[in-house]
Amino acid sequence: MSLKNKFAKESFTIMNELVLPNDTNTLNNLMGGRLLHWMDIAAAISAQKHCNRIVVTASVDNVSFKHPIKLGDVITIEAKVTRAFNTSVEVRLDVWAENIPSSTRQKSNEAYYTFVALDPSGRTIPVPELIPETPEEIELFEGALRRRQLRLVLGGKMKADDASELKALFFKA
Amino acid sequence: MSLKNKFAKESFTIMNELVLPNDTNTLNNLMGGRLLHWMDIAAAISAQKHCNRIVVTASVDNVSFKHPIKLGDVITIEAKVTRAFNTSVEVRLDVWAENIPSSTRQKSNEAYYTFVALDPSGRTIPVPELIPETPEEIELFEGALRRRQLRLVLGGKMKADDASELKALFFKA
Amino acid sequence: MSLKNKFAKESFTIMNELVLPNDTNTLNNLMGGRLLHWMDIAAAISAQKHCNRIVVTASVDNVSFKHPIKLGDVITIEAKVTRAFNTSVEVRLDVWAENIPSSTRQKSNEAYYTFVALDPSGRTIPVPELIPETPEEIELFEGALRRRQLRLVLGGKMKADDASELKALFFKA
Amino acid sequence: MSLKNKFAKESFTIMNELVLPNDTNTLNNLMGGRLLHWMDIAAAISAQKHCNRIVVTASVDNVSFKHPIKLGDVITIEAKVTRAFNTSVEVRLDVWAENIPSSTRQKSNEAYYTFVALDPSGRTIPVPELIPETPEEIELFEGALRRRQLRLVLGGKMKADDASELKALFFKA
Amino acid sequence: MSLKNKFAKESFTIMNELVLPNDTNTLNNLMGGRLLHWMDIAAAISAQKHCNRIVVTASVDNVSFKHPIKLGDVITIEAKVTRAFNTSVEVRLDVWAENIPSSTRQKSNEAYYTFVALDPSGRTIPVPELIPETPEEIELFEGALRRRQLRLVLGGKMKADDASELKALFFKA
Amino acid sequence: MSLKNKFAKESFTIMNELVLPNDTNTLNNLMGGRLLHWMDIAAAISAQKHCNRIVVTASVDNVSFKHPIKLGDVITIEAKVTRAFNTSVEVRLDVWAENIPSSTRQKSNEAYYTFVALDPSGRTIPVPELIPETPEEIELFEGALRRRQLRLVLGGKMKADDASELKALFFKA
Repeated sequence: MSLKNKFAKESFTIMNELVLPNDTNTLNNLMGGRLLHWMDIAAAISAQKHCNRIVVTASVDNVSFKHPIKLGDVITIEAKVTRAFNTSVEVRLDVWAENIPSSTRQKSNEAYYTFVALDPSGRTIPVPELIPETPEEIELFEGALRRRQLRLVLGGKMKADDASELKALFFKA
Repeated sequence: MSLKNKFAKESFTIMNELVLPNDTNTLNNLMGGRLLHWMDIAAAISAQKHCNRIVVTASVDNVSFKHPIKLGDVITIEAKVTRAFNTSVEVRLDVWAENIPSSTRQKSNEAYYTFVALDPSGRTIPVPELIPETPEEIELFEGALRRRQLRLVLGGKMKADDASELKALFFKA
Repeated sequence: MSLKNKFAKESFTIMNELVLPNDTNTLNNLMGGRLLHWMDIAAAISAQKHCNRIVVTASVDNVSFKHPIKLGDVITIEAKVTRAFNTSVEVRLDVWAENIPSSTRQKSNEAYYTFVALDPSGRTIPVPELIPETPEEIELFEGALRRRQLRLVLGGKMKADDASELKALFFKA
Repeated sequence: MSLKNKFAKESFTIMNELVLPNDTNTLNNLMGGRLLHWMDIAAAISAQKHCNRIVVTASVDNVSFKHPIKLGDVITIEAKVTRAFNTSVEVRLDVWAENIPSSTRQKSNEAYYTFVALDPSGRTIPVPELIPETPEEIELFEGALRRRQLRLVLGGKMKADDASELKALFFKA
Repeated sequence: MSLKNKFAKESFTIMNELVLPNDTNTLNNLMGGRLLHWMDIAAAISAQKHCNRIVVTASVDNVSFKHPIKLGDVITIEAKVTRAFNTSVEVRLDVWAENIPSSTRQKSNEAYYTFVALDPSGRTIPVPELIPETPEEIELFEGALRRRQLRLVLGGKMKADDASELKALFFKA
Repeated sequence: MSLKNKFAKESFTIMNELVLPNDTNTLNNLMGGRLLHWMDIAAAISAQKHCNRIVVTASVDNVSFKHPIKLGDVITIEAKVTRAFNTSVEVRLDVWAENIPSSTRQKSNEAYYTFVALDPSGRTIPVPELIPETPEEIELFEGALRRRQLRLVLGGKMKADDASELKALFFKA
């Protein structure tokens, strides 16, 4: 059975969360780990929409937290698959935090999570290919190879010398 | 007031958690985001021990999940500060999963989280320097500069050309 | 200070949730109360976007649960303000449940929640008027009066005889 | 096998809950959705006592929230089955909020939830008849037909013209 | 200001909880610590009803768990103050577990928790005296002294020789 | 099959927890029941390490709470098996609370939990014997008999007259 290719937009997922007291530290700022948890759920939903399979998190790329997010803020997480590999997908996440009484909204994070698709007995299984359409989707699709090499180098599974795509990252300026 | 330097071992923190049903997906595997959340709490406790301050997560480096972790497994997270910068610290995490009925225990993850120290009004504040003692602590201390440059390059705050330490990462083999 | 009117679409909110074990009964079906809780959070976010104020739930209209929702399903909740009254708003919710491995998605619920806007000291405060644009928004806007009369009659605050709009409901066929 | 009829009082259930930080908004008021969730659990316990079966929520009637409930308040929920239909029951809920340091206690809500009884494979199954005893139980028993017609009309399953009992609601004054 | 004495029955509290997946171990049995947590909340509500003050747990007496409690069971906890001391009260708890589909209900636990009353600044404060009425309340009232001595001896705050009431416990047969 | 004896230190377990808002009462103090819950999880992990089996809580001995623990404090729980009986083990717990901004750390509790080991079908099953090594472990090992007799007397399963070891407790100076 051959898998039907899918468009990037078919995996688009939006998640809103309200920052509750238990999500915050004693300064009333959202704890980073709680946000990483929500991002994982949003990304997993997106990956499942593409794969039509149970998926498990394989890796998370560098995430940095730019601004403090406050108790009562509304978090918006947008997730979309950027590229499918053999049995895995990369998901791009964009996160905003909105403080409603003050009408401010700012970008909080960007991140990439990867997921592996599993069959009901827990073995990896091929996933559909992803077709990017918009210029932004195409750029994310092409960058996915580079980010994948960085993961392999950082995980000790590829030598830096062999990471041809990755070099582009370091000289893209 | 000058801050008293501290040893790496003073920040050592161990956390054990039991994988409960709500932490798992429909294959009874621990969800990655839940583990990232626990790791953030363990790392924050470790960073606070070093800084004696409220800390907030500034970034998480690449994390990969090697093996599925099952419902009922015992998670052990060990955290220790590797190096202090001006107002921030890097924390190294090692994670194991233990299945007690089958007496198996395996390494699940290694990761680096960074934290910024804040005063009670939420402004960044200097932290004590860290003194590494064992060979392992010294190696982690030295590698911290390299990892920091990678964070800056990936975050678009440093050009790859200027990341002198980072090049060592790519040519360390 | 006069409030600036707002469009219905400015309050549009999407929330995705994954049905986890603790959300289900012993037949692995989502419990209705858990869904009502999520719907309240989604509706409150939508109401806050319109009011730019803290809001509290004033009432929930009849909600019926048509199909069982299973462990692991993805819930999508869409919320949009239908009409603003003096210090309150009505929010319309549409809920779908998606079972990803079987690629099925079905409408689970429709509901109306109302919220009152509060100032920081907890007193009610006027909210902006809502401007409906699409035919669907206009229909919801007009129906809001009728639903409001039903709430007042059911709450014992209006006699059925005086509920002129409500009679239209019973004779709309 | 014929089912043994049961008295209303056999399903009587009391639940107390303490309002914790995560149950509240940034004004420290209990969120309505959290209360609806607790009410669903109390009502489900009551319905199970009558049916001796797993039950699932079929609908919730209009609920209005009269007073703000504060962090630290004690919630008391009383639930009792009012009437059994073929495979379903209606449960009446009365909710009070008590602020202990100030010795104040006030009625917060009244509500009706309906539940369907399921066998272990998830199919609907007949439930015992309910026998009301006190004048209050008899009044609730009789009103149940009217509320049921309103649910059917609002759910689009009955024409308003055919809702003979419902008309009594609108002309009961 | 003198405090008004109160009857034991004024502090009577009932709490029902449903055993959810996250409350259980991998054999689907309720974990003891979760039950101790619920018992603490029920006992604190009861103690607050007597004291009309914020209360904090001062101690828990020996608790033994007689039967496994299963996922989906309904827990009923009954709590009542047995005796007031200067700034503290002892609360008696009785716990039952009910399996509704099989119509079985069995006593799970009996326990005694003690609480200290605090004023808003966190200092201990006198509480009203308790008046027992029924034979059972009088027996619990009298036994409270004995249990208090046992707590003091076990806590190293009283010599066994001085525990006159406690000796009665060991020779009551 | 004979079970291999195990050393006390093989069951040593450390758990760190951060006191979050939902763990506290309205004075921002940790609620006792929440701590008992964490202690149960730490003790169960320790008991499982010794038994290599699923374990269930059989009893908790008297626990007293000496100092208020505040929101944001770091809890450290250390657990170690003190003695194995036929199918059960006793676990000793030591609990500290650390307030990091003020660099204070104090002992909060000591406690003993007992657990029964179960096979996969839920029947009790023999556990390995425990070998104490250090003077402290030997003292805890010897005291375990005494504490066990107290549990039996308090649970009504042994007459005080027959509790030879227990008398030593009351006359130990």
